[in-house]
Amino acid sequence: MSNPEIAKLGHFALITTDLEKSKWFFSEILGLEETETVDGVVYLRAWGDFEHHTLSLQQGDESRIDHIAWRTKRPEDVDAFAKILEESGTEVTWVDAGVEAGQGRAIRFKLPSEHSFELYYDVEKPLAAPERRSVLKNQTYKSWAKGISPRRIDHVNLLTSMLANEVSDFLEEKLGFKMRECVQAPDNSLVGAWLSVTPLVHDIAISHDPQSPTTNQIHHISYWLDNSQDLLRAADILTEHGIEFKGPGKHGISQAMYIYAIDPGSGVRVEIFTNGYLIFEPDWEPIVWTLDEMDIGFTYWGDQMDSKTENNPTIKG
Amino acid sequence: MSNPEIAKLGHFALITTDLEKSKWFFSEILGLEETETVDGVVYLRAWGDFEHHTLSLQQGDESRIDHIAWRTKRPEDVDAFAKILEESGTEVTWVDAGVEAGQGRAIRFKLPSEHSFELYYDVEKPLAAPERRSVLKNQTYKSWAKGISPRRIDHVNLLTSMLANEVSDFLEEKLGFKMRECVQAPDNSLVGAWLSVTPLVHDIAISHDPQSPTTNQIHHISYWLDNSQDLLRAADILTEHGIEFKGPGKHGISQAMYIYAIDPGSGVRVEIFTNGYLIFEPDWEPIVWTLDEMDIGFTYWGDQMDSKTENNPTIKG
Amino acid sequence: MSNPEIAKLGHFALITTDLEKSKWFFSEILGLEETETVDGVVYLRAWGDFEHHTLSLQQGDESRIDHIAWRTKRPEDVDAFAKILEESGTEVTWVDAGVEAGQGRAIRFKLPSEHSFELYYDVEKPLAAPERRSVLKNQTYKSWAKGISPRRIDHVNLLTSMLANEVSDFLEEKLGFKMRECVQAPDNSLVGAWLSVTPLVHDIAISHDPQSPTTNQIHHISYWLDNSQDLLRAADILTEHGIEFKGPGKHGISQAMYIYAIDPGSGVRVEIFTNGYLIFEPDWEPIVWTLDEMDIGFTYWGDQMDSKTENNPTIKG
Amino acid sequence: MSNPEIAKLGHFALITTDLEKSKWFFSEILGLEETETVDGVVYLRAWGDFEHHTLSLQQGDESRIDHIAWRTKRPEDVDAFAKILEESGTEVTWVDAGVEAGQGRAIRFKLPSEHSFELYYDVEKPLAAPERRSVLKNQTYKSWAKGISPRRIDHVNLLTSMLANEVSDFLEEKLGFKMRECVQAPDNSLVGAWLSVTPLVHDIAISHDPQSPTTNQIHHISYWLDNSQDLLRAADILTEHGIEFKGPGKHGISQAMYIYAIDPGSGVRVEIFTNGYLIFEPDWEPIVWTLDEMDIGFTYWGDQMDSKTENNPTIKG
Repeated sequence: MSNPEIAKLGHFALITTDLEKSKWFFSEILGLEETETVDGVVYLRAWGDFEHHTLSLQQGDESRIDHIAWRTKRPEDVDAFAKILEESGTEVTWVDAGVEAGQGRAIRFKLPSEHSFELYYDVEKPLAAPERRSVLKNQTYKSWAKGISPRRIDHVNLLTSMLANEVSDFLEEKLGFKMRECVQAPDNSLVGAWLSVTPLVHDIAISHDPQSPTTNQIHHISYWLDNSQDLLRAADILTEHGIEFKGPGKHGISQAMYIYAIDPGSGVRVEIFTNGYLIFEPDWEPIVWTLDEMDIGFTYWGDQMDSKTENNPTIKG
Repeated sequence: MSNPEIAKLGHFALITTDLEKSKWFFSEILGLEETETVDGVVYLRAWGDFEHHTLSLQQGDESRIDHIAWRTKRPEDVDAFAKILEESGTEVTWVDAGVEAGQGRAIRFKLPSEHSFELYYDVEKPLAAPERRSVLKNQTYKSWAKGISPRRIDHVNLLTSMLANEVSDFLEEKLGFKMRECVQAPDNSLVGAWLSVTPLVHDIAISHDPQSPTTNQIHHISYWLDNSQDLLRAADILTEHGIEFKGPGKHGISQAMYIYAIDPGSGVRVEIFTNGYLIFEPDWEPIVWTLDEMDIGFTYWGDQMDSKTENNPTIKG
Repeated sequence: MSNPEIAKLGHFALITTDLEKSKWFFSEILGLEETETVDGVVYLRAWGDFEHHTLSLQQGDESRIDHIAWRTKRPEDVDAFAKILEESGTEVTWVDAGVEAGQGRAIRFKLPSEHSFELYYDVEKPLAAPERRSVLKNQTYKSWAKGISPRRIDHVNLLTSMLANEVSDFLEEKLGFKMRECVQAPDNSLVGAWLSVTPLVHDIAISHDPQSPTTNQIHHISYWLDNSQDLLRAADILTEHGIEFKGPGKHGISQAMYIYAIDPGSGVRVEIFTNGYLIFEPDWEPIVWTLDEMDIGFTYWGDQMDSKTENNPTIKG
Repeated sequence: MSNPEIAKLGHFALITTDLEKSKWFFSEILGLEETETVDGVVYLRAWGDFEHHTLSLQQGDESRIDHIAWRTKRPEDVDAFAKILEESGTEVTWVDAGVEAGQGRAIRFKLPSEHSFELYYDVEKPLAAPERRSVLKNQTYKSWAKGISPRRIDHVNLLTSMLANEVSDFLEEKLGFKMRECVQAPDNSLVGAWLSVTPLVHDIAISHDPQSPTTNQIHHISYWLDNSQDLLRAADILTEHGIEFKGPGKHGISQAMYIYAIDPGSGVRVEIFTNGYLIFEPDWEPIVWTLDEMDIGFTYWGDQMDSKTENNPTIKG
C-alpha cells in the first residue's frame, strides 16, 4: 500500500467573539457565499470553491482557529494517517460524520506547536442555489456578487515561538508536505518555512518569532484572487468600510502579491493573495534565503507589516 | 514499484520554414529569452521557466512540431514508461543525452494520432546571465524585458481527424493523464478532451474535427501570463507589429482567457493564456459538456475563432 | 460678451417600455446609484458623478431617449444659446426649474437630425446617503458596491441616415463642439464624426448609416470605467446575467476599449468604456480616416459589432 | 480681446549631473522615446505625447529643473502674458525660436517662489520614425516598446518653504489656474494646493514644508499610465533594476494611484501616476481638507513617503 497523502487544504474553523461582525466581514466585505447555517455555525465558501465550505464561523468566548482541515487523496488515507500518527506518539481524536455540516468522519490531532489539524476525505460539494449558480458547469457561483470576491481558499500561515523547522519537520515527515522555500539562520535553524502538497508554493507557512505569545498563533489565513488589479479594488473596498489592512505589496518568497486585512469580529488576519508561481518540477530544491536576504524575501516591494510581532496581534490556532 | 508518472509539460520542438522570422516572433514579440543556440537550434524559455528550454526552433523544409516533450516524476520513470509502451505495442525510440541541449536521455514515441511525444527526466536548469538575472532567487530572469513577456509554458492542444477519445484513452491508460473536462457527442464519443497530470485544468487538449487535414495537427501551443490585463497589452503589441490573432476572449471550459496569435515564421498558433481555475480535488469528476453546450464551453465571451477548420490553418505535429 | 459655451455632457433621459427591467439593468447590473424617484421617474448616477443624475428612467409606450442634456459653462449661457438658436431658425422650448428633479430652468431644441438636446446650468449636487457616502470628500459614493460600477457618464453616439457632417456642422457652428476625429468619404462628406467640448476625444459622436431607420436613432450611450481589466470583469457579470453584448475590443479612433451591452428593458445600447487619450492641444487638427482605414479606426482589435445596421437594432433619440 | 490662457503643461527641462545615467533611466526604465539630441540636449517624450518633447536632459554642475514649460491656448497669448506679467512687476525674459529644439519663441519668468516657468505656443509635432510609428493615425509611437512605458506627461509638484497660497495666488491671478483641492491650516493659509487649467485635478501642485531647503524645490515631475495594473508592473521593473521608489499607493486628493521613483542620475523624483478623476463642472468648488484630514488626503491606502522632508531629498526648480 502506498503512503497516505494529503490532497489539499480544506477549510478553516474560526471561533469568533463577535459572530455578527465576522459574518458581515467575510460575507459582505470579503464576499464569501453562505452554504448554510447549522446549529449556529455559519458555513462559507468562495465562488470558485467546490467543497461544502472553506470557512466556518462560530460564536465563542475567545477568538481562535479551532482547527485547520485538509482533505486526503484517497478515502483510506484518513485511517492510514491515524495509524501513522498514533504509532509515532501523536494523539488522534475521531470526529463523526456530520459533526461538521457536509463532511464525513475525520481525525484531529495537534502539531508539535499545538496547532490543531483535521484530516477528512468525504465531503459534499453542493450546487449553489439556482439564482446564484454560474452559467458555467465548472464554476460554483456567479463571480463578483459582492465585496472583494476571491475565487478560492489559498493557504494558512502559522506563527510560533518554536523554531520553524520544529514544525516543518513534522509536516514533512508525518504528512508528506514538501519544503518549497525557507529562511535559514546561520545555525541552520529555520525562521520561516513555506511548504505544500500541491504545486502552489505554499499551502502552509510557518513563521517563527521568539516574541510570539504562544507556540500556536495564526499569522493569517488566505484567499485567492485571479488578478493583481483585484488587490487594488480590494484596497478601495476595505478603506471605504473602515477595515484595517497592510499592503498592497509583493513578496519575494512566492512572488505573490498581498493585502493583509483584519476581520473586525475575530481579529484574525486574512491575506488576500494573487499571482506568484507554481512548482511543477519533481526535483525542486528548496529556495533557501539567509537572514540578510529576508527583506527582499518578505517584501519585493510595497507596503509591509511592521516587523515587530507585538504590533501585529494574532489569534491562537 | 509504483507506476511511472509524468510530472509536467517540458517543451515544444518547432521546425520552421523561416527561422529568422520565428526567432523574431518568439523573442521580440512574445518575449521569450534565448538560453543558447547550438548547431543551429535556438533554445528559448520564458522568464519564469526553470528548465533549459521550453521551446526550440530549427530551420526545416516544412513547419511542424517535431515533438512535444514531458518530464517524468522520477529518473527511473523514463525506462518504466518505455517498457510499458513497448509491451503494449507502441514503438519507442531512444534519444541520447545531449542530442537536445541541456537534456539527458529520452524516449520518443507516437500517439495513436501520430503526434510525437518525448519523455525525459534529466534536464539542466541554467541560471540566466548576470545582467538578465532576477534579483529574486526563485525567478530565472527579470520580467517584462521585451514583448508580451509570458511567465511560463502552459499547455498544448492537438487537432485530429480521429475522435478525441481515441487519443485521450491512450493518454489516460498509458501515460496517467486525468480527464478534466470534455465535450461529448450523443453516441458518447468525445469531440474535445482536456486532460492534465497537474492541477492545471489541462496540460493537453484534444480537438476533434473531421475536416482536419491529418490525424496529427497542432491546434496550438500555449504560454501563460499572470494577469488578464496582460492579454490586452498583448493585443496592442500584436496589432502594432502586424501579427494576426483572434481574441481576447474567455473560455467556459477552463475559465481561462485567451488570445490566439500566429507565428509568421512557422504558422504555428500560440495561445496566450491567463486566469482559469486549478483542480485540487482528488475525486474530480470530468465536466461533461454536450454539443448543445459547446458554444459557451468554447467561448464564455469575446472574440472567437471561426468554427470552420479550413479557415484556421494548422501545422502538423 | 463672450460666446456661450457648453461645459459638459449632463444626462440621458431614457423612456423605457419596461421600467422594472431597465431599473434592474442600470442599478444592479451596470451598478448605478439611485438619487431619488420622483413622480415615477427614477434618477440615477454613477458613484463618481457629482450632479443630481446622469440618467433618468421613465415608463413609456416606446423606448427612446427623450433628450440628451448638456450643462453650460455659465448661468447666462442658457439664455445666450436660446437667442443664437432662435435667431438661426431653431425652435427652442423652455423647461421650468424642477420639471426634472434637481435641475433649474432649461431649453430644449432639435438638431437637424431631430435628436432632442437640452441645455441647463443650474443643477443640484446632492450628497450620498451617509451609509453609502465615500470616506473621501471628493468622491460621491463608495465605489464597487454592485455590478459593473462605472465611475461616471462618458458620451453619446447618435445614429442617423443623414450625412454625419450635416449634424456635426450644426454642433460645431451653433454649439461650439470641436471636431476631433472623423471618417471621410471620397466626396468629402463624413460618415462618422467624433466631437467634444472637453479634452475627451468625444463627448458626442455621429454615425451615418443610409440604412438607419430614421435620422434620429441612438447608437449608444456610454459610461466610463477607470481600468481596462474592469471591462473583463464587466463581461463576466453580463454573461452571468444573460445580458447580450459585443466586445471587449479596442477602437482605433479614440484608442479606447469597449463593451456594448443592451439594456433588456428599453433596448438601448450602453457602451462600457475605458482608457483612450485626452486632447489638450489647442491647435488640434482633426484626425481624418478614409473609408479604407475605417476597419482599424473602428476596431484596433477584439470582438466587434456586425457592420450591418439591420442586425443592430437601436432606439430613437 | 479675451484674457490669455494656458492650454496645457508642455515639458520639463532637467539639468543632471549624470547625463548618461539619467538618459538610461528615462529611456530604458521609464521608457520614454528620444525625438533627437541637439547640442548635447536629449529631447524625450512618451509614446502618446504629440509635441516635440515633454522632457529635455542636459549635463550640468547641479541637478535641477531649469524650467517648467506651458503651452498657451493661442499664439498671441505669449505676448499677452508677457505684458500682464511685466505690468505687475514680474521680470520676463524672451527665448528665441530654436533655442529649444522644435519650439518657437517663448518667455521665461519666475514664480514668487523662484521656480522658473516658460510659456510658448509654437511647437513642432514630429512623426515618429517609420519603424517606431504606431499603426494608428492618432498615436505617435507603438506603445510598450521598453520599460514602464507611460502614455504622456501629467503634472508637476513644487515644494517650497513658502506658504502654498503665496504661490497658488500667483498661479490663479496671473496665469488663470483654477484651485481644485487644497489643505488648509486653521489660520486659512494653505499647506498644499492642487490647481489646473485642464479637467485634470492638477496640472501643478504646491507643497509647503517649512523644512524645505529653499523656496523653489521640485517635489516631483509626473508621467501618466492608463491602468492601475501598470503601476504594479512598474514596481517590478524598478525593483529589478535597483531603482529606489515609494508606493504603490492611492491618494485621497485626486483619487489617483502612484509610485514615486528617483532618477539615479539627477535625483529628481518622478511620480508614475494613473486613475483619478476629471473635473468637468464649471462651478467646481475647491475641495478643502483640514490638517486633521491630511492623512487620508495624501494616502487613501498603500505605501507612502516618509513625512519628514529631510528624509526625502529633492532637487531645485
